[in-house]
Amino acid sequence: MIRKVLIANRGEIAVRIIRACRELGLKTVAIYSEIDKDAMHTELADEAICVGTSKSKDSYLNESNIISAAVVTGCNAIHPGFGFLSEKASFASMCEECNIKFIGPSSETINIMGNKSVAREIMKNANVPVIPGSDGLIENIEEAKIEAKRIGYPIMIKASLGGGGKGIRIVANEDELENAFFTARTEAKNNFGDDSVYMEKFIENPRHIEFQILGDTFGNIIHLGERDCTIQRRNQKVLEEAPSYILNDELRKKMGEAAIKAAKAVNYVNAGTIEFLVDKHGDFYFMEMNTRIQVEHPVTEMITSVDIVKEQLKIANGDELQLTQDDIKIEGHAIECRINAENPNKSFAPCPGKISFLNIPGGNGIRVDTAVYNGYTIPPTYDSMIAKLIAHGKTREEAINKMLRALDEFIIEGIESNIDFQIDILNNDIFRLGTFDTSFISKEYNL
Amino acid sequence: MIRKVLIANRGEIAVRIIRACRELGLKTVAIYSEIDKDAMHTELADEAICVGTSKSKDSYLNESNIISAAVVTGCNAIHPGFGFLSEKASFASMCEECNIKFIGPSSETINIMGNKSVAREIMKNANVPVIPGSDGLIENIEEAKIEAKRIGYPIMIKASLGGGGKGIRIVANEDELENAFFTARTEAKNNFGDDSVYMEKFIENPRHIEFQILGDTFGNIIHLGERDCTIQRRNQKVLEEAPSYILNDELRKKMGEAAIKAAKAVNYVNAGTIEFLVDKHGDFYFMEMNTRIQVEHPVTEMITSVDIVKEQLKIANGDELQLTQDDIKIEGHAIECRINAENPNKSFAPCPGKISFLNIPGGNGIRVDTAVYNGYTIPPTYDSMIAKLIAHGKTREEAINKMLRALDEFIIEGIESNIDFQIDILNNDIFRLGTFDTSFISKEYNL
Repeated sequence: MIRKVLIANRGEIAVRIIRACRELGLKTVAIYSEIDKDAMHTELADEAICVGTSKSKDSYLNESNIISAAVVTGCNAIHPGFGFLSEKASFASMCEECNIKFIGPSSETINIMGNKSVAREIMKNANVPVIPGSDGLIENIEEAKIEAKRIGYPIMIKASLGGGGKGIRIVANEDELENAFFTARTEAKNNFGDDSVYMEKFIENPRHIEFQILGDTFGNIIHLGERDCTIQRRNQKVLEEAPSYILNDELRKKMGEAAIKAAKAVNYVNAGTIEFLVDKHGDFYFMEMNTRIQVEHPVTEMITSVDIVKEQLKIANGDELQLTQDDIKIEGHAIECRINAENPNKSFAPCPGKISFLNIPGGNGIRVDTAVYNGYTIPPTYDSMIAKLIAHGKTREEAINKMLRALDEFIIEGIESNIDFQIDILNNDIFRLGTFDTSFISKEYNL
Repeated sequence: MIRKVLIANRGEIAVRIIRACRELGLKTVAIYSEIDKDAMHTELADEAICVGTSKSKDSYLNESNIISAAVVTGCNAIHPGFGFLSEKASFASMCEECNIKFIGPSSETINIMGNKSVAREIMKNANVPVIPGSDGLIENIEEAKIEAKRIGYPIMIKASLGGGGKGIRIVANEDELENAFFTARTEAKNNFGDDSVYMEKFIENPRHIEFQILGDTFGNIIHLGERDCTIQRRNQKVLEEAPSYILNDELRKKMGEAAIKAAKAVNYVNAGTIEFLVDKHGDFYFMEMNTRIQVEHPVTEMITSVDIVKEQLKIANGDELQLTQDDIKIEGHAIECRINAENPNKSFAPCPGKISFLNIPGGNGIRVDTAVYNGYTIPPTYDSMIAKLIAHGKTREEAINKMLRALDEFIIEGIESNIDFQIDILNNDIFRLGTFDTSFISKEYNL
């Protein structure tokens, strides 16, 4: 039985997890780096323990220090949040060895899904549609040429251990192939410690649609509908919504079934996300699986009334899911805007510093997940996302209007933020029409 | 068509109404008294206009100044909120004469429902259960004695124009009657300008259960379920929840039908509330009707997903209700805690002053309606309620746990508040069991 949970993270997601634990009556331990000693998550947890200096590798990525902190404070579970150690199989494995429950899937599942070419093969074998591409890895340039011709340009060369939009080269024609192939391998080696690459057809101007999955230790797997995460800047999600404007009931059903098939193919346990690309013909393709809670999970919570973090804790505790697929009903429409401390006028460069005045919006249908407060100093060391603003309305239009009025009420003085940029997006005609694709921000704003 | 709305109120309810207007694309005008020039509602509205000095009677109750402000700024509608002019028939009537839409029922309905003995007679004739009592007014002490004996002690003597718990005398036996009768008349005369009184049986230790009503100009009337407002201190509501723990489906259906019958009896238009007392046998009695939006409306919004203020605006605009009774589904459980600037250690005396640090809770299932901000100075002039904290969970237990963690995160420095008192209530065994009645606070806390 989970009694006491160490939260191996910081910022709003650490606060999110602490809140879920408290509401379930579980004790919590926050970890923090030296620069984070006054951070909100250290205040809200029952205990807080310093695990190292400011650099992530010395603190929030310091596996042995974090395990020691859990042991010292008597925690029998660790929630990794997202980022940091959340998809590090070695950390999940270390938890397993120390008899500390890792709140997520097994280290084996993390390992398999972390290898994008292996994941792709598993999905193909499970009859989950994958993007047309190479059978396994591409070993040399000759093979690359043959495969590229067979698949048809444009194609992508992808690092086997990449993910989250990193380690990808797009190739328009055979002239570009040789250079791209060798660059991709070198980059893969440098970034992920492994130079293996594979090839996929490049889907032009797709929508990014992902399905939230919950699986328990009894083999029950359900999905909580989709999130549309198409609004991205340089492969980083900016604004997410649920449900997706482009899915009709038939496509939603087909994709939901494929998502469950994908999760079942690896006997998935805990919360996870199946990411798909949807092309302009409405064909969809498995892209990757994220084996952790995601930044954008609140939009799903708003429209399904399922508390995903609480479900994670219950599943990790060995409880059987109390929800069947038929229990999941979609109510209304939710949008999340990521509020980042960054300067839109300086290429969105991070803009840390002291918040001299803060006014957080509220009222009907507004949820704010944040770890910042009046007078808080945002350190320069970590991710620039400082808040998530979520609006829930009966319709997409109501959610947009609600988000606009809430963004207008959101005041953060002392630093720069992307609030005005989010307002621009919400007022954009193409966004409002719903007919955008992943190139929306680059095309509309030259970014 | 309503284009531009003057909000004849201040504080969180003014902010609430401005938000609804903005989300519907309506222009807004805030009014303020001199002391309120930096209040949040003046910032959020499209325009703001000063209507007088700090005293309510010179500003927020100054009918002709407010009408002038509406005319000058080109508003074609006025939302009165609650308190102040919201149940003043003369003000609604002045709006009607000036061709400004009063967002509420007609002045005639306000007038009828404001007279508690007249309302009682109407309900009796419409077969809505009323508390056993006198037929109309009690003119003299002889009549009082005869009626009291017929009804059976304990009885209440109530001012005809009273309401909200004011102008009531409880009489345990005939020895107390004469004194109580004359005191009640004198008080009624002094407080309401009219000494007429009537008599009702005193219901011991009841629950206070009210039904939210919506009626449009086409004669459609629906209810949005009940709110349990039993937790009161000296007839002032402290904490409200929905649904009520003591109502089963059968009683809910019966009371809902009675509430609709009551609203139909006066051809009610716009949002209103039918207040009932429920005794320990499960018998219920009409108490009064509030012809305005209520403080505690958010708990109903959370469990029905109906935005009551938007519905008010649409009804006032002449739109037909887009909801039937069958569309109203109750989802989960919601609790509202009123956060007051008052000192529980000094008999809950108001505690105005400057907020030196403010942290407002957030996260999943938490809604905050407030008009205070960091550095704001709460004036001593008005009501001490400064925020409403609302928690929505799948069950009553989840809502309570959510509220407790949110109250714990709520930090207001520089003034005193009732936050710790609310935490005490939520941790109280009787409250958690749900078996309380209106005497809960006086019995448990000697207050």
